[in-house]
Amino acid sequence: MGKLVIVGTVAFDAIETPFGKTDKILGGAATFIGLSASHFNVDATAVSVVGGDFPQTYLDLLSNKKIDISGIEVVKDGKTFFWSGRYHNDMNTRDTLVTELNTLADFNPVVPEDYKDSDVVMLGNLHPLVQLSVLEQMAQKPKLVILDTMNFWMDCALDDLLNVIKKIDVITINDEEARQLTGEYSLVVAARKIYEMGPKYVVIKKGEHGALLFHEENIFYAPALPLEEVFDPTGAGDTFAGGFAGYLAKTEDYSFENMKNAVIYGSTLASFCVEKFGTERMQDLSNSEVHKRLMQFKQLTQFEIELT
Amino acid sequence: MGKLVIVGTVAFDAIETPFGKTDKILGGAATFIGLSASHFNVDATAVSVVGGDFPQTYLDLLSNKKIDISGIEVVKDGKTFFWSGRYHNDMNTRDTLVTELNTLADFNPVVPEDYKDSDVVMLGNLHPLVQLSVLEQMAQKPKLVILDTMNFWMDCALDDLLNVIKKIDVITINDEEARQLTGEYSLVVAARKIYEMGPKYVVIKKGEHGALLFHEENIFYAPALPLEEVFDPTGAGDTFAGGFAGYLAKTEDYSFENMKNAVIYGSTLASFCVEKFGTERMQDLSNSEVHKRLMQFKQLTQFEIELT
Repeated sequence: MGKLVIVGTVAFDAIETPFGKTDKILGGAATFIGLSASHFNVDATAVSVVGGDFPQTYLDLLSNKKIDISGIEVVKDGKTFFWSGRYHNDMNTRDTLVTELNTLADFNPVVPEDYKDSDVVMLGNLHPLVQLSVLEQMAQKPKLVILDTMNFWMDCALDDLLNVIKKIDVITINDEEARQLTGEYSLVVAARKIYEMGPKYVVIKKGEHGALLFHEENIFYAPALPLEEVFDPTGAGDTFAGGFAGYLAKTEDYSFENMKNAVIYGSTLASFCVEKFGTERMQDLSNSEVHKRLMQFKQLTQFEIELT
Repeated sequence: MGKLVIVGTVAFDAIETPFGKTDKILGGAATFIGLSASHFNVDATAVSVVGGDFPQTYLDLLSNKKIDISGIEVVKDGKTFFWSGRYHNDMNTRDTLVTELNTLADFNPVVPEDYKDSDVVMLGNLHPLVQLSVLEQMAQKPKLVILDTMNFWMDCALDDLLNVIKKIDVITINDEEARQLTGEYSLVVAARKIYEMGPKYVVIKKGEHGALLFHEENIFYAPALPLEEVFDPTGAGDTFAGGFAGYLAKTEDYSFENMKNAVIYGSTLASFCVEKFGTERMQDLSNSEVHKRLMQFKQLTQFEIELT
């Protein structure tokens, strides 16, 4: 059982979908990653920052999932990062309505002493300099470093992003971002170009179309579970990353074959995330529900073919 | 080994893609379906119509693949159906430049006597009244009727389309068409609505994102093989349908479990089709190439997970 460092936002989200809208609710990349990774009972810490306005009940919620929160700085006279967005009818596109960085603007991540020897580091979507700072605090090279990022950093901080990408093992980005990062339309060619930037493994998230894992000449494709209804996609990518990182930290097997399973776990957990607003579905998700859905994933994708 | 009736266009296509353009080359739904189904050595007939301008070499090409062409009417003083299109850079959208129905305008399909007792009927994309006419010529109810169609018929001949859909077992359409036909965005809900129209099995084609098979509460999802380059998507959907129908006719097992394999074969064959212009890649495709790619499909999708 490996130890896991998670860095990312812990935040307030306000979400509008065709199904309804929320006030400020619990959100943030580190929150979704942590809730997802907690299903593997790994020893995990969340490194983040919040303001004095952040409810203790939200911090307790993470603690109760056995996520160490000593790395979450509370800036008493500051305000918590706030994001608000509205999804379009197809749920695949959204408009950002509000982004208030607040305490995140001056965030200096501090990895708790006990976690500096962690095996797995999950760098959630944040400024690449913050991601780099976390890496540099590790006492030794972790066995696996996973980085999630987004187009925003490609637009505004590409050099910093490329600098941290050099030092990681796995990158998780979506299809459009992979195309933007490489200038290649074919995801096969894009993955190959990303290898040259540093990561030996590339995970490309395609939302309702699933996720692809690339390593050398190998490809694995996990479809997304077709759902009757996507209620709120917020956090699905982070939930995927949390399941991926949590499974690998638990099993301590960082091979391509085992990463296939990590992708399946990530996809399974993400399929729950979108069923309710924000973190709601993930808060009370039981292991037996996860196991049941894993069986559905097997039925969805596994076949027995005889060559004719 | 079941017998297979294929109805669809046998045509001239002229294609423009970012990679180049062709003069009039061999095309048409029945052509692609036939070439694909021929990999299963089933006893198949193509029911179609061409004009006096259609080269004997093209007809020979089908005959050499052991496709009975006695059901292809040659209208000596008529011209062959002609379609021309230009693909956009993303290869997912295209503009139709020319559609000349020619002999297709008065097409009265005639199923050869020897094939009226066929087990499987593959109704390729054509006017629903033509599809219906083929069905009505069968001496007895076939074991499996598969129908492919497109949004054009939903716009122009919806009542006729719904009438033939009532009488079939499997429908193959793309995701946007499934949404148009049902008014439902969720493909899970759309499939359920299509069951009520008649078909017990629904195949939804998602191009580069693969294909979904629905039956009752069961879903199977075959991703598309990620390719370095899609050279020309023309005929990929028909090639998929031909592999699906051919495999089922060969194995004579029309269960959901075996249809999973049929979807995998269809996807495998379609992955070749897009590698060259028109039917070029399918003309000389060997069984050993197909087998090799099936193995790639297994590696792409199969995993061994232990519950944790």
